[in-house]
Amino acid sequence: MFMNFKEELNHKVGKIEELLREYLPEEAGFQRTIFEAMNYSVLAGGKRLRPLLMQESGRLFGREGKELGPFMAAMEMIHSSSLVHDDLPAMDADEYRRGRKTTWVVYGEDMGILAGDGLMIYAFETASKAFEETDRPDLVGACIRILAEKTGVYGMIGGQTVDVELTGKPVPEEQLDFIYRLKTGALLEASMMIGAILGGADKEQAALMGQVASDVGLAFQIQDDILDVTSTSEVLGKPVGSDEKNEKTTYVTLHGLSAAKKQVEFYSRRAVGALKGLPVQNEFLNELILTLITREK
Amino acid sequence: MFMNFKEELNHKVGKIEELLREYLPEEAGFQRTIFEAMNYSVLAGGKRLRPLLMQESGRLFGREGKELGPFMAAMEMIHSSSLVHDDLPAMDADEYRRGRKTTWVVYGEDMGILAGDGLMIYAFETASKAFEETDRPDLVGACIRILAEKTGVYGMIGGQTVDVELTGKPVPEEQLDFIYRLKTGALLEASMMIGAILGGADKEQAALMGQVASDVGLAFQIQDDILDVTSTSEVLGKPVGSDEKNEKTTYVTLHGLSAAKKQVEFYSRRAVGALKGLPVQNEFLNELILTLITREK
Repeated sequence: MFMNFKEELNHKVGKIEELLREYLPEEAGFQRTIFEAMNYSVLAGGKRLRPLLMQESGRLFGREGKELGPFMAAMEMIHSSSLVHDDLPAMDADEYRRGRKTTWVVYGEDMGILAGDGLMIYAFETASKAFEETDRPDLVGACIRILAEKTGVYGMIGGQTVDVELTGKPVPEEQLDFIYRLKTGALLEASMMIGAILGGADKEQAALMGQVASDVGLAFQIQDDILDVTSTSEVLGKPVGSDEKNEKTTYVTLHGLSAAKKQVEFYSRRAVGALKGLPVQNEFLNELILTLITREK
Repeated sequence: MFMNFKEELNHKVGKIEELLREYLPEEAGFQRTIFEAMNYSVLAGGKRLRPLLMQESGRLFGREGKELGPFMAAMEMIHSSSLVHDDLPAMDADEYRRGRKTTWVVYGEDMGILAGDGLMIYAFETASKAFEETDRPDLVGACIRILAEKTGVYGMIGGQTVDVELTGKPVPEEQLDFIYRLKTGALLEASMMIGAILGGADKEQAALMGQVASDVGLAFQIQDDILDVTSTSEVLGKPVGSDEKNEKTTYVTLHGLSAAKKQVEFYSRRAVGALKGLPVQNEFLNELILTLITREK
């Protein structure tokens, strides 16, 4: 069956939803409330961009190992955990996300903290299931390390720390770059590097994939800034103009809308250019990255 | 130099403090606040019982691998992360721990959440450094998996979930057992199992160590309940009588002081009895477990 890009994307995202359901915990036992809160958080929809990038980076290098599934699920759990904690009253105090009540609103603030913790650890529990599926425990180990490094204080959580500290204050360009590269970029880097390593890439190629992902992360985040100014809340499913309302420094406030648009295009094209220099190709992955330039939500 | 048990214990705990300092992050960079908060939390003192049990379980089986250090540090980071989150206003709202202000009081509630998250993930980052030190990535992988399982929703966090849900309500015996085995016991199980596996134990022996640790965990937790009734806040460094004040169900409230004391003795002796049945022996480990019966803080 021939599918165009949009159909193929929907098909792949559907498969990822199935994969997530397969790995998420069963809602049973004395602690079932935390299972419910975790599943509520992860199954709230979303682009599933991180597992998708991981999968396609794996396909790029050809080896379709069974180790990839646990890591794809783990990555989305980590991403969800960060949203659950970001939404807490002591953080962004958000009551809605993707048109649904946030986890702490539904399950209480204490369970919101625990569900985020639970997802974070369950991600590593899930990823470590890949040791069962593999004859290359060294590679799985390297991927666990990357997952931890890019999630933690030198990755996503480090970026989140600076973001929280500078909330309501003017953000110098250097720190904004740091926040974007860590808070958004780091998990994308981990996704593409882990996919590549499990797919059979060598060290140099895995490092290149990290750089590509860093560009993709910047393009993605700057496009977020742009949409907050140019889109409508109906299309986005969340309030627009919130950056201005919160006096938040963004690429748009620092550089203007036109320059920001050019930067999204620059980083996306640079990422795809680097991929095209590889001896192997994945047209879907290239197209996926280029849609970041034109995405409307 | 001959040392008695107490001197040897202090010496070993001192070495663990050094190990922790070695693995904790340097307080530098844009995100230095989170590094400070993490280090403040971990270096607040404490018995270091978990890394100690891990180390001694490794020594019991003889192989002194370099993989043990990262896991010992990781275990204490996990333990600290749980204390940081337990103390948060939305959880126990504790302002003091071990005579010092709790992390969220010093660094703010948002940074308290992030420091706990940071420690949790940094534990896995640290543990995964063991892949560099090993020629047995399969064993290190198995230990990472145990660390995650015993920390997560089927371990410590699962126990914490039920504890939080039943706060202020009468706790049936079955749930109290569940909470104790998971909230306190699970990390001790992981400590002794990981130590044993890295120390050269076979699968059966590692499972036995898990059972021993489960008994140790129960003895430890019931002794906590006893001290809350029989000790003074000067000795404990925290308020006594808090269980009664909070109408908390404990082993003492369920079974009475005398029965609780007998249970501590029963579980400690059963644990040591199982260890004495092994073909290898570690006298220090046996003595350490027996001190739980008589510990005064």
